[in-house]
Amino acid sequence: MRVFIIKANEAHTANDFSLKDLPGTSGRIDLICRALNSAFHLSHSFRKNVRVYVTLLGPPDPPKSLRFEGPELKPKILNPDELSTAKIIGKALERGKDIKRKSTEEIKVLPGIYVSNMSFEDVIRVVIKRFPLYILEEDGKDITEVEFPKNNVAFVLGDHIGLSSEDLSFLESVGMKVSIGPKAYLTSHVIAYVNIYLDRLGIP
Amino acid sequence: MRVFIIKANEAHTANDFSLKDLPGTSGRIDLICRALNSAFHLSHSFRKNVRVYVTLLGPPDPPKSLRFEGPELKPKILNPDELSTAKIIGKALERGKDIKRKSTEEIKVLPGIYVSNMSFEDVIRVVIKRFPLYILEEDGKDITEVEFPKNNVAFVLGDHIGLSSEDLSFLESVGMKVSIGPKAYLTSHVIAYVNIYLDRLGIP
Repeated sequence: MRVFIIKANEAHTANDFSLKDLPGTSGRIDLICRALNSAFHLSHSFRKNVRVYVTLLGPPDPPKSLRFEGPELKPKILNPDELSTAKIIGKALERGKDIKRKSTEEIKVLPGIYVSNMSFEDVIRVVIKRFPLYILEEDGKDITEVEFPKNNVAFVLGDHIGLSSEDLSFLESVGMKVSIGPKAYLTSHVIAYVNIYLDRLGIP
Repeated sequence: MRVFIIKANEAHTANDFSLKDLPGTSGRIDLICRALNSAFHLSHSFRKNVRVYVTLLGPPDPPKSLRFEGPELKPKILNPDELSTAKIIGKALERGKDIKRKSTEEIKVLPGIYVSNMSFEDVIRVVIKRFPLYILEEDGKDITEVEFPKNNVAFVLGDHIGLSSEDLSFLESVGMKVSIGPKAYLTSHVIAYVNIYLDRLGIP
């Protein structure tokens, strides 16, 4: 199983954004939609071996965490385009309104799609129980020098704002920084690259 | 300079599609938008060394070819999200209506964005005058075994329908088939991978 964890610093935590202008009204939920596309979609096929967590930290009710679970997801629910995925996220946030503030409950929104009040750190703590963690950062160890385990690998990524120095000091205490190339890349491009890189290594 | 050429088999050739449902009404112009995102966007930056040709072959008036010219493009014109890029494509197709059928004229729509009546083969013939051509196909030579030139490299890709056997027999007479990995990948993911791969090789 491959896990991708995305920290969406400004992504709205209610279904209050306009589908006509996602970049301007949603705190960049368009970016999350493209990241999900890169995580799950193949040409005429779907990666069943992927789990994605997105922690949304924008107004009005942060944090909200979404979990997309490849083995349970129906390809017809998650389509490649941004708008249909943004609608799914809106629906999940709608359902998430009713979760009590301190609750650790995870609500199933659709097959393979869950919403909770988990924080970014909560998500990381759950994942590292079972998965070695790699932090995708420009100044990390080159990916070709990393020996990945044969199974079960988790990656954490920032959004357009990135991971803060506080995030990084926590993450580096539980994981290893890895770089995929010499420039700063968009979240969705990093996920696409890592997925293909792991395919090439034969890691499921 | 890196060139990406995309054959969009069903993409509409008039501004007749709905931004509310690009996958269902435009012949998959959403796919072209994500391919352009992968070709040009970096985190808080823009690839000036990229040119993209897209040949649209859907109704009502094929072929139309769009050229996106990195060195001239303004980052504020081409944004990362699908809808704003689809609007630009719509605008280009609007301008392209007036081109006479047999004309080879290329009309400037916006800085760095051009529309013409060029066919897919026309585009290939123009590009191979100056660029070695690589055909991105699942059964090509592995990318790590290819010696790319130090400058000027062109890649051709299909869309969700792919390149036909006729296309391939023509393309293989002028270029080399290259594969990036063991699965069939989405056009936008292939472009993201190739861009990062070339960055790693230090190819501008």
